[in-house]
Amino acid sequence: MLKLYFTPGTCALASRIALEDAGAEYEIALVDFSKGEQRTPDYLKVNPKGRVPALVTDRGTLTETPAILLYIAQMFPAANLAPLEDAFALAELQAFNSYIASTVHVNHAHGRRGARWADEQSSLDDMKAKVSETMAASMQLIERDFFEGPWVMGEQYTVADPYLFTIESWLKGDGVDIADFPILKDHFDRMSARASVQQATADLH
Amino acid sequence: MLKLYFTPGTCALASRIALEDAGAEYEIALVDFSKGEQRTPDYLKVNPKGRVPALVTDRGTLTETPAILLYIAQMFPAANLAPLEDAFALAELQAFNSYIASTVHVNHAHGRRGARWADEQSSLDDMKAKVSETMAASMQLIERDFFEGPWVMGEQYTVADPYLFTIESWLKGDGVDIADFPILKDHFDRMSARASVQQATADLH
Repeated sequence: MLKLYFTPGTCALASRIALEDAGAEYEIALVDFSKGEQRTPDYLKVNPKGRVPALVTDRGTLTETPAILLYIAQMFPAANLAPLEDAFALAELQAFNSYIASTVHVNHAHGRRGARWADEQSSLDDMKAKVSETMAASMQLIERDFFEGPWVMGEQYTVADPYLFTIESWLKGDGVDIADFPILKDHFDRMSARASVQQATADLH
Repeated sequence: MLKLYFTPGTCALASRIALEDAGAEYEIALVDFSKGEQRTPDYLKVNPKGRVPALVTDRGTLTETPAILLYIAQMFPAANLAPLEDAFALAELQAFNSYIASTVHVNHAHGRRGARWADEQSSLDDMKAKVSETMAASMQLIERDFFEGPWVMGEQYTVADPYLFTIESWLKGDGVDIADFPILKDHFDRMSARASVQQATADLH
């Protein structure tokens, strides 16, 4: 059975929602960041990067959200979570998810993980102060140029939707009011009502 | 015909090498960062993110290196640049490329693009000073845990190879001696000897 190493509040939520959307059988292994479990020797054997998510399959372990999401879409084609037969549309989906991973998530990470990239407390404070600006700029770009509607990629719900939802769920903590982005606010509300999202977040309440 | 918006010294090199590996017909449109061309209204119509690469196809424009590389592999299957028939192996390839995009390239960017994430000169200096440490840590992780050999993913040369090569070509400027990573040094040397790499970098000399 698939096993997802998961921590509430992290981007691992996207993979968990996608597993629910796929109707996959899977188990959850909680990684408690407050106890530093992502840095224990046992966990580093699972994922040498010391991060979540990690998805254990019968072939081995996968990391990196855009890759895990593509894998889930490919392994559960009946769930229709990606345009697998259209190379251009699939590349557009991967481009969206790559932007989330390499720009939007990175913007967010400067609020609490700035020590990855600088040492002085003044630098970390400076980074943290800029997060609301960079996250708002990314949300504006997504809303104006990339969100097709009603779902991220258009009529078809895809694995881009739980990934964007995960980011949307971070905005309040990043000092961004999602109400400033009405299309994203509507997306967030419709996602929140989905059974897959409620199931994936049930143990967080 | 495909058109690649390209700037020497950037990650767009990976897509250009892959196009050469694929035997694709394409044209290059140079974007001169020294003149700020990535921020002109004309270029923002091509890529609202103001970045390279952007690959113009007859279906529309693609951005984000991991997505463009997957697209090239899918459109030129005879070149055998990705394990397209094996969902797990393809996800491993996408995981590698996603790590380059969202961690390694981001580490590098703190050396000269720190103003994306902080405002004070002291913060930018602090970030810049840490680049050699973060880049070396990423190279160690790749060499120890992810590089299969003789190519990134094993026996099969894939689009992960030009992406890693692009990063390897940045190491000297980032204060990292590639000789400290003998597997990567060997990869860099073998890549440098390939006709596709020489063609993709010919106009830079």
